[in-house]
Amino acid sequence: MFKVISKDKNTKARTGKIQTAHGEVNTPCFMPCATYGVVRTLSNEELKNIGIEIILSNTYHLYLRPGLGIIKTLGSLHNFMNWDRPILTDSGGFQVFSLSSLRKISEEGVEFQSHIDGSRHFFSPEDVIEIQQQLGSDIMMPLDECVEYPSERDRVKTSLELTLRWAERSKAVHSRQLTVDSQEEKVRTCEPSTVNRQLFFGIAQGSTYLDLRKEAVNRLLEMNFAGYAIGGLSVGEPEELMFEILGFTLDLLPDDKPRYVMGVGSPIDILNAISLGADMFDCVMPTRNGRNGCAFTSEGKLTIRNTQYAEDKRPVDLNCNCFTCKNYSRAYIRHLFSLDEMLGLRLLSLHNLYFYNNIIRNAKKAIEKGRFEEFKREFEAKIQ
Amino acid sequence: MFKVISKDKNTKARTGKIQTAHGEVNTPCFMPCATYGVVRTLSNEELKNIGIEIILSNTYHLYLRPGLGIIKTLGSLHNFMNWDRPILTDSGGFQVFSLSSLRKISEEGVEFQSHIDGSRHFFSPEDVIEIQQQLGSDIMMPLDECVEYPSERDRVKTSLELTLRWAERSKAVHSRQLTVDSQEEKVRTCEPSTVNRQLFFGIAQGSTYLDLRKEAVNRLLEMNFAGYAIGGLSVGEPEELMFEILGFTLDLLPDDKPRYVMGVGSPIDILNAISLGADMFDCVMPTRNGRNGCAFTSEGKLTIRNTQYAEDKRPVDLNCNCFTCKNYSRAYIRHLFSLDEMLGLRLLSLHNLYFYNNIIRNAKKAIEKGRFEEFKREFEAKIQ
Repeated sequence: MFKVISKDKNTKARTGKIQTAHGEVNTPCFMPCATYGVVRTLSNEELKNIGIEIILSNTYHLYLRPGLGIIKTLGSLHNFMNWDRPILTDSGGFQVFSLSSLRKISEEGVEFQSHIDGSRHFFSPEDVIEIQQQLGSDIMMPLDECVEYPSERDRVKTSLELTLRWAERSKAVHSRQLTVDSQEEKVRTCEPSTVNRQLFFGIAQGSTYLDLRKEAVNRLLEMNFAGYAIGGLSVGEPEELMFEILGFTLDLLPDDKPRYVMGVGSPIDILNAISLGADMFDCVMPTRNGRNGCAFTSEGKLTIRNTQYAEDKRPVDLNCNCFTCKNYSRAYIRHLFSLDEMLGLRLLSLHNLYFYNNIIRNAKKAIEKGRFEEFKREFEAKIQ
Repeated sequence: MFKVISKDKNTKARTGKIQTAHGEVNTPCFMPCATYGVVRTLSNEELKNIGIEIILSNTYHLYLRPGLGIIKTLGSLHNFMNWDRPILTDSGGFQVFSLSSLRKISEEGVEFQSHIDGSRHFFSPEDVIEIQQQLGSDIMMPLDECVEYPSERDRVKTSLELTLRWAERSKAVHSRQLTVDSQEEKVRTCEPSTVNRQLFFGIAQGSTYLDLRKEAVNRLLEMNFAGYAIGGLSVGEPEELMFEILGFTLDLLPDDKPRYVMGVGSPIDILNAISLGADMFDCVMPTRNGRNGCAFTSEGKLTIRNTQYAEDKRPVDLNCNCFTCKNYSRAYIRHLFSLDEMLGLRLLSLHNLYFYNNIIRNAKKAIEKGRFEEFKREFEAKIQ
């Protein structure tokens, strides 16, 4: 279900292809956040026109709103949101810990209060898999505990052990489910690589402790996941430390499985992670920054509300072919922002996602030509 | 610059074509409100896909924000907002009276305070023409005074006289400008019918007094405008009275000029006005209702937030081919509204504009076949 297509000469960057129930995903890939089943401000047609191949939704959010009943009535998350390309669902672990109040963690799972209405809920690792099975996402993630940065080694160790026990329990449900499904559909294999199956990734935690990261990876490898995610990064640690842990952990992961760096990051962060061998990314930055009036451009960031753009006839990015840059001037988009008109938020969200996707597209080409390092250097030089 | 194409058999409904500097407008037509140079939530591409041929912008709003300087730097309103089809600009008369505080009316014009920042401004009738010339709209409207409903006859009479003197002054500036332009461009004719010229419409006021409406029309006809608008309707008067005045006034207008009913209205209001001989309409209803979660459908209005739609797989309107109805379910759009997600507001705005435009498209066909009355009756029966 994953094939490495090409490798760069001088870095660990690689291109690949993931086969999912809803089609192929070319890696490296950037997954826009459709937390509640919508990439904010954008239609699915716009996402496809940009070239987005996979989006990320969130189990915690969708479970609370609109709730599973509604999504099941509509068939699946794909049906509900009318998106026919792959979807990765995050487990909700991170959200339970960052958004909800009064969470109580036990061996069994996590009890939490909804950040919307304060209602009480309980997620076991098994629940989270079952919810994602009902959502029908293409790639599922297990419930994990996320520790804040910085955390004492003992705290991280204890948390990691729990996360790994939860991973085992999650894997057991998933394997059982696969077996049942396979029998029902008279398919002999119950490998997770089977198309028409939900892929299940493991998440390596371990905070800033290299030995704990190593332990996390080793234990996950024993469980044999379809892909491996690196969690708990970009949570406040210094950049240098983040890349040290990232590089160290990526090196431990097998070549023949996709590697997903959760919640990272800026365009340059992503290029750096690609050079260390990462394949998949998600981040709210392009859409959130877009809504805040901040555009990523080939010459660095641009704050559209600045007075200097009031009469600027030029597109947001002089070197961009997105819908926004082909049709609208900085002056007009600034006018929309000064009106708090949502078309403005949408035009910059669209541009920023196009910009992200375009960097990755160009990165892929560079990797195929064995000149990724050069490409990254050129990009960094232009941005700064 | 205006041609009647066909007339209905049993009503006064007609189809026609207005030639403007930015192309033809087929009538009857509905003009979405792009008050500040944007039809809220929608891109120009979406408007074109719906089939919108002309939009309405507002002199008062654009003068205050972004201001003329910015629009002139970008070239024109068309350039600024990247819309290459016709634009009608309202004069701002209605807005000065409805939005701004501390307005002082004199023979010379109107002094007012911005509803945005309280700054003081003055509009003479001449100013308003010059502003619209700088905006470069295709159809301009003169500054007028709008009286509230109900108003005493004396008050209306005095106001109407002022509005008519203002109309004369406006016409003088416009004719002078036309002559100058014609000489500059070595064009012999200075008829307002010349393509590449801004068309200038008169506005008939007179509140609910038929004799004053008649006087208004007669005086405007002497001034010879390219088209005639009926203002001061749909401001709180009973519906029956509105249609009485509308029918009476439309009957006074010449056949060979377009007739624009300002600020009207609901789909049924528009069909009724068409049957009385009206050609052009504008109303915030489709977009404002869309943003408020209210959809117009072939079976009446639908409030998307209602619980009954929570699991409804069907499109907003079962008989609609718009982007929204082809792609999204009621359940999903309701979910977007419960998130306050702007994609929801946009999807319903788009649907409602498509619905309005579609009614008018079907009305045109019915008129051409001489069966407008039947069409209107069928439409009303379905809606109720």
